[in-house]
Amino acid sequence: MLSPAAGLSRRGLLGLLGAGAAGLAAGAVGGAVATVAVGGARGDTASGGVHAFYGDHQAGITTAVQDHLHFAAFDMADSATRDDLITLLQDWSYAASRMTQGLDVSASGAIGGSPQAPPDDTGEALGLPASSLTVTFGFGPTLFEREGADRFGIAAQRPSLLTPLPRFLGDDLDPLRSGGDLCVQACADDPQVAVHAIRNLSRIAFGRARIRWSQLGFGRTSKTSAAQATPRNLFGFKDGTANILESDREGLDSFVWAAAADGAPWLAGGSFLVARRIRQTIETWDRLRLAEQERTIGRGKGEGEPLSGGSEFTAPDFAATDEAGAPRIDPHSHVGIVHPDAHDGMRILRRGYNFVDGNDGLGALEAGLFFLSYQRSPEQFIQLQRAMSTDLLSEYLRHVGSGVWAVPPGASAGSYVGAGLFG
Amino acid sequence: MLSPAAGLSRRGLLGLLGAGAAGLAAGAVGGAVATVAVGGARGDTASGGVHAFYGDHQAGITTAVQDHLHFAAFDMADSATRDDLITLLQDWSYAASRMTQGLDVSASGAIGGSPQAPPDDTGEALGLPASSLTVTFGFGPTLFEREGADRFGIAAQRPSLLTPLPRFLGDDLDPLRSGGDLCVQACADDPQVAVHAIRNLSRIAFGRARIRWSQLGFGRTSKTSAAQATPRNLFGFKDGTANILESDREGLDSFVWAAAADGAPWLAGGSFLVARRIRQTIETWDRLRLAEQERTIGRGKGEGEPLSGGSEFTAPDFAATDEAGAPRIDPHSHVGIVHPDAHDGMRILRRGYNFVDGNDGLGALEAGLFFLSYQRSPEQFIQLQRAMSTDLLSEYLRHVGSGVWAVPPGASAGSYVGAGLFG
Repeated sequence: MLSPAAGLSRRGLLGLLGAGAAGLAAGAVGGAVATVAVGGARGDTASGGVHAFYGDHQAGITTAVQDHLHFAAFDMADSATRDDLITLLQDWSYAASRMTQGLDVSASGAIGGSPQAPPDDTGEALGLPASSLTVTFGFGPTLFEREGADRFGIAAQRPSLLTPLPRFLGDDLDPLRSGGDLCVQACADDPQVAVHAIRNLSRIAFGRARIRWSQLGFGRTSKTSAAQATPRNLFGFKDGTANILESDREGLDSFVWAAAADGAPWLAGGSFLVARRIRQTIETWDRLRLAEQERTIGRGKGEGEPLSGGSEFTAPDFAATDEAGAPRIDPHSHVGIVHPDAHDGMRILRRGYNFVDGNDGLGALEAGLFFLSYQRSPEQFIQLQRAMSTDLLSEYLRHVGSGVWAVPPGASAGSYVGAGLFG
Repeated sequence: MLSPAAGLSRRGLLGLLGAGAAGLAAGAVGGAVATVAVGGARGDTASGGVHAFYGDHQAGITTAVQDHLHFAAFDMADSATRDDLITLLQDWSYAASRMTQGLDVSASGAIGGSPQAPPDDTGEALGLPASSLTVTFGFGPTLFEREGADRFGIAAQRPSLLTPLPRFLGDDLDPLRSGGDLCVQACADDPQVAVHAIRNLSRIAFGRARIRWSQLGFGRTSKTSAAQATPRNLFGFKDGTANILESDREGLDSFVWAAAADGAPWLAGGSFLVARRIRQTIETWDRLRLAEQERTIGRGKGEGEPLSGGSEFTAPDFAATDEAGAPRIDPHSHVGIVHPDAHDGMRILRRGYNFVDGNDGLGALEAGLFFLSYQRSPEQFIQLQRAMSTDLLSEYLRHVGSGVWAVPPGASAGSYVGAGLFG
């Protein structure tokens, strides 16, 4: 549509392309977009799962969990201004609206524009479909205020619920894997597509923000089974059996979506994201007797049924006892500790991914769960995490990274994520 | 089939199961196995791509490249004996023969056996199909001789070609990401299946060998395109256009498979594997003009055509000149340097995977290519790598890990990989 002039800065280019973005957005509203005719299209967008970027909520929260994750936390540059933050969010939203449709990051594309300029798009996803990509943005406590400084003129709009998480028993957090002014969660069914999204957003941020830390993860990727079975974590157990599904509107409104009445009207329809990098001591776990593994979780390993009986989706019966009168589900088992029944029905929406990052210096796999949960208030996570101090499972977990972010509602067509904060 | 007694060591257990392994092997010979009826089967093995483990050559060399890699280098324990090495290779071969069929690591399975014993299988692949898993084993120079010591009585059988790689210009090797007495390459279309294989082989090795380093990687995983397009590397270019295919018997015999006449008869039908962890300085690359990127590679970015013209699979014409009389393909471009035409037709078989391991402390993605090549002699790799010292591309690459291993031929049914070394 637009031909970038040689030498034009990325930022100027993306600003220029605002008009194109708005036109594109109009096509994207109201469902999947398969046939938007713009320059720089890559692959056959119809074939690869397309999620709308614009809408009431950001995609990537209730979206069916994709196979691969690339999560990145960013810090704003010390020199960045309020205008830099606004234009960064505009440029990111525009780029995300394109990439989630299987398009290159800008209309000039990976090989368009001039041979005498660097391509806008880095190119490694050329020819790949959208692959169900979602890109979800969040704002950390330090974006609103850092060491008493209101760098971007938004301190007054910080949600009162958005504060650094308290220290939990057993925390062993690496500051270089924790926090961040901004976060971006890219999920896709192809790791190269998720990586491409983070890389290009990082490139767009150049001079305004840079990656503080990032994490890749994978879920259960087999597409050969017809049924979408509950994935297994690296302890070999099914994980996520009792999650909040997209169809559960009441559950989402109660436990996931922030409301205007919660105190920060600009966040209504958004949520709070908690990320925890949890090392699992898998070699120790693997040496446990099966019975001890199952007692620790509170479920059978094969089918995932609660130890009180039934099948995977049977509700646990915490009152059930064995012949000796002992509870069939240990009250300190993981399910006993975190089940909604133990928390007056309170729930969170989990989107965790397994990770394996090579091995540590002792020959143990550097493996675990990159825990991601969305909730209406970080207090929900805090309550569960505090309860886990007496969870039998905690002996096999090490929390080594952590962060919390306010996740704005979705952007309306032609606008950008977080616009409500700057209105 | 066999019920393990509580308290039986893994090693004893797997030894016991040798009879079962032989039975299983008989079913596996001669092609894909979809319906072997043994205990501990997981998932529907028919649905997930099954490669035979036993055969003339190890699987995972000419096998069509799967989407995900987990590669691990192991060192034998200082206390390990020749018998430990032999039984480890037997146990590994047995476990690999099962996992590649979509079965649990032993017949007692992830939940079989006794609840009072740790399960043999770690369980995270329960319910997943074979997912095209291949497991390929290699023997490093230090397995044959370490600091003058013939630890396992095999020094006399070291192939004369198997020596540590020479130091190359620009090498910046991390010893903790280099070398290893043994290596295992696990490739699968599901990362959880590849990780499961390495984890369980590592567990089986307990007390005899342990992981020295490991690396995960991904290829172009989209299964939505009908055609198997050439994958792109993280520089955004198609990579692997001129590879040796399984159908090219003559090319394989000339350039990949070791022959008895090469000096180590036990290695006939095997090969030599070179692994290099290559950081790509992608942020620097992304700032290059498109024309400079294409000059550096010697191909167009969009289609992958040589700059002398044509399409992706057109042979490069190194004599072609432009209007000014300059060569269209720069002699120092990557294709100019490594093309078989520059090496009297010499080729290697490449199986590289992209990797992204978070980011470094400077906000740059810790990303690159995990290069894997199979060749009849390491000299083939050495020649190409030396030539690359004047390759324009080398400015954007940092070799940070390295290893070379002799890869034995495939095991015959009921035997094990490397048996020829101990005959």
